Amino acid sequence: MIKEKINQDSSVGVVKTQSFTFESLKLESGEKFGPVTLAYETYGTLNQEKSNAILIVHALSGDAHAAGVHEHEDNAGWWDAFIGPGKAMDTEKYFVICSNILGGCKGSTGPASINPKTSKPYALDFPLVTVGDIVNAQKRLIDHLGIEKLLAVVGGSMGGQQVLSWLVNYSHNLCAAVPIATTIKHSPQQIAFNEVGRQSIMADTHWKSGNYYDGPFPLKGLAVARMIGHITYMSDSSMADKFGRQKKGSAEPFKFTADFEVEGYLRYRGDNFVKRFDANSYLYITKAMDNFDASGGRRFEDILQGTKVKVLVISFKSDWLYPAYQSKEIVKACKLAGVETTYCEIDSTYGHDAFLLEVEEESHLIKHFLKKVFYAYEVTGDYGA
Amino acid sequence: MIKEKINQDSSVGVVKTQSFTFESLKLESGEKFGPVTLAYETYGTLNQEKSNAILIVHALSGDAHAAGVHEHEDNAGWWDAFIGPGKAMDTEKYFVICSNILGGCKGSTGPASINPKTSKPYALDFPLVTVGDIVNAQKRLIDHLGIEKLLAVVGGSMGGQQVLSWLVNYSHNLCAAVPIATTIKHSPQQIAFNEVGRQSIMADTHWKSGNYYDGPFPLKGLAVARMIGHITYMSDSSMADKFGRQKKGSAEPFKFTADFEVEGYLRYRGDNFVKRFDANSYLYITKAMDNFDASGGRRFEDILQGTKVKVLVISFKSDWLYPAYQSKEIVKACKLAGVETTYCEIDSTYGHDAFLLEVEEESHLIKHFLKKVFYAYEVTGDYGA
Repeated sequence: MIKEKINQDSSVGVVKTQSFTFESLKLESGEKFGPVTLAYETYGTLNQEKSNAILIVHALSGDAHAAGVHEHEDNAGWWDAFIGPGKAMDTEKYFVICSNILGGCKGSTGPASINPKTSKPYALDFPLVTVGDIVNAQKRLIDHLGIEKLLAVVGGSMGGQQVLSWLVNYSHNLCAAVPIATTIKHSPQQIAFNEVGRQSIMADTHWKSGNYYDGPFPLKGLAVARMIGHITYMSDSSMADKFGRQKKGSAEPFKFTADFEVEGYLRYRGDNFVKRFDANSYLYITKAMDNFDASGGRRFEDILQGTKVKVLVISFKSDWLYPAYQSKEIVKACKLAGVETTYCEIDSTYGHDAFLLEVEEESHLIKHFLKKVFYAYEVTGDYGA
Repeated sequence: MIKEKINQDSSVGVVKTQSFTFESLKLESGEKFGPVTLAYETYGTLNQEKSNAILIVHALSGDAHAAGVHEHEDNAGWWDAFIGPGKAMDTEKYFVICSNILGGCKGSTGPASINPKTSKPYALDFPLVTVGDIVNAQKRLIDHLGIEKLLAVVGGSMGGQQVLSWLVNYSHNLCAAVPIATTIKHSPQQIAFNEVGRQSIMADTHWKSGNYYDGPFPLKGLAVARMIGHITYMSDSSMADKFGRQKKGSAEPFKFTADFEVEGYLRYRGDNFVKRFDANSYLYITKAMDNFDASGGRRFEDILQGTKVKVLVISFKSDWLYPAYQSKEIVKACKLAGVETTYCEIDSTYGHDAFLLEVEEESHLIKHFLKKVFYAYEVTGDYGA
């Protein structure tokens, strides 16, 4: 996301997005849906025992491009600081996979994809997928790659929801899980922010009940949705540090120009986002997040009983979108269920964005956790066979 | 706002909105603007010494109807719980005035008013007014009512900004000031939330650069702006208490219906708001809030030097839109300037809305503060003559 010069020594270098297509997936709703394509990238090498694979799962607006650069481009992947030789997810040791999600718009099947029955984009004929469906599709990719047991699944925000879904549904296929800045289920406030974003998209006259693919796109509505998101990703104090009340010296005669730096920043972020994201995907993914409940309406500790997966939960002090108390609920349930769990609340001022930005402390935690898990896995020799 | 049955004993009863028009106002920009009409209401009786007048100033979406009911209607005024016989602003003792703001759309001159030069609504030809302009217009109303010195000015949120502006610009015309849940100046986060609301309005194709008065109104954009506002007015925990994750049993086939109670609530609030509020006013008022800086770029304590006004500052623990630290900045500056100041942070879970809802504790504080101020005023006999 942030354009930065790649350090050749610690970068995975030039990478290519691949894709995997399978015929159909049984959705949690019971519906059989297909074909399904997932875009994904891999970094590092799968060892002979297939015991060193780590799956990275992304947040709302992420994609399969987590590390390195694409040919003729110089934008590093969204979690490049964490993936590469010597980094938290050390590609000299581990085989790292990042999969784009079902319902997305970055190379995977989603509402903008062509519906084979109509030869037109699905739009709102796309099924209402769940986080469970997204994870079931990822499992198919992992099977396809010949991996029976992942060393770990790691992800923040909506990625953290996917990690919890892996933990609940595929505990036998995991050694470890790292849910970061996430929650068992969305609070009404989290639902409310997503809902306002959806309303903003649906209020755009170009949205046309989702059937906009042959005409102008609902870019303004999507931009406003993204701006709302950006406010919730930062903390009050990180905004104050970044912008203060600096005025942009605008001389335009129009009265509602971006006077303050923060206004210009939000407009820039909103306008940029619409170039790379599909409005209908925004609707589907946020709805999947809101509907997600890792505990399935039961007590989460009951669901986790007997789980052998090792868990590292990370939260950030100034994150008010996914506040630390939600991570502590995960930790509490894990402890009650007898799951080996480590918890760390990192003292950051970055707000929710911290999971992308607190490189040093977060890397330290993840690196040492993975090392321990990998060592135990090698010692037990239980390679999932 | 909240429909409630009026208790005849403690209500000011049936009231009528009045209006006051004056020829012109010199704006802080230097521009001479007029004519200006302000809508206002009064409750109680002005005493002979004209020493018992309290001015109530309202928040972003408020109006002059602060107490009692209008004829043939049963909606109590927005601060009815605080104004009436025996209440915090006791109408058996005090003469209470509530004035709608310049730039608003509830009977006062604003962008929807007719521009006498064109015989059409001003729309964006309306000048970019400031909180200072709003207060200067109120001062004209107070002069018109023959009051030289107000016993107090009381208001929350944007009302609190007006209170601070009164304190800075008209300290000789005040005995006391009660800024509630407010700030010396908006933080980037506060600006950001307002900016996204403005962007949402301006993204509505019906907005047409503000020239929508003869066609469809930008209702959807305004509704989204209001929904964003409502999220910021509540706390995470008050939302959780009010809504939980209750699903509304919707059987509609459309996929993005309001599934959760909180979604239905936001849509209802948004849709209701557009019936009573003008989108351009929303732009102008939020911009006035964002541009407001009571310290005028200096240190606030320097501005307050020599002020004889007594100040009561109130904040609320769960208010994250106008967090307590901002109220403490007001208190600190007052103390440094030697201004007699009382501060209370009320332990509420209601978030920013608490200034409308924490009736008991807030009433207690205001009532006793006003009593003390009124007694001191009577004893000194300084009736502002």
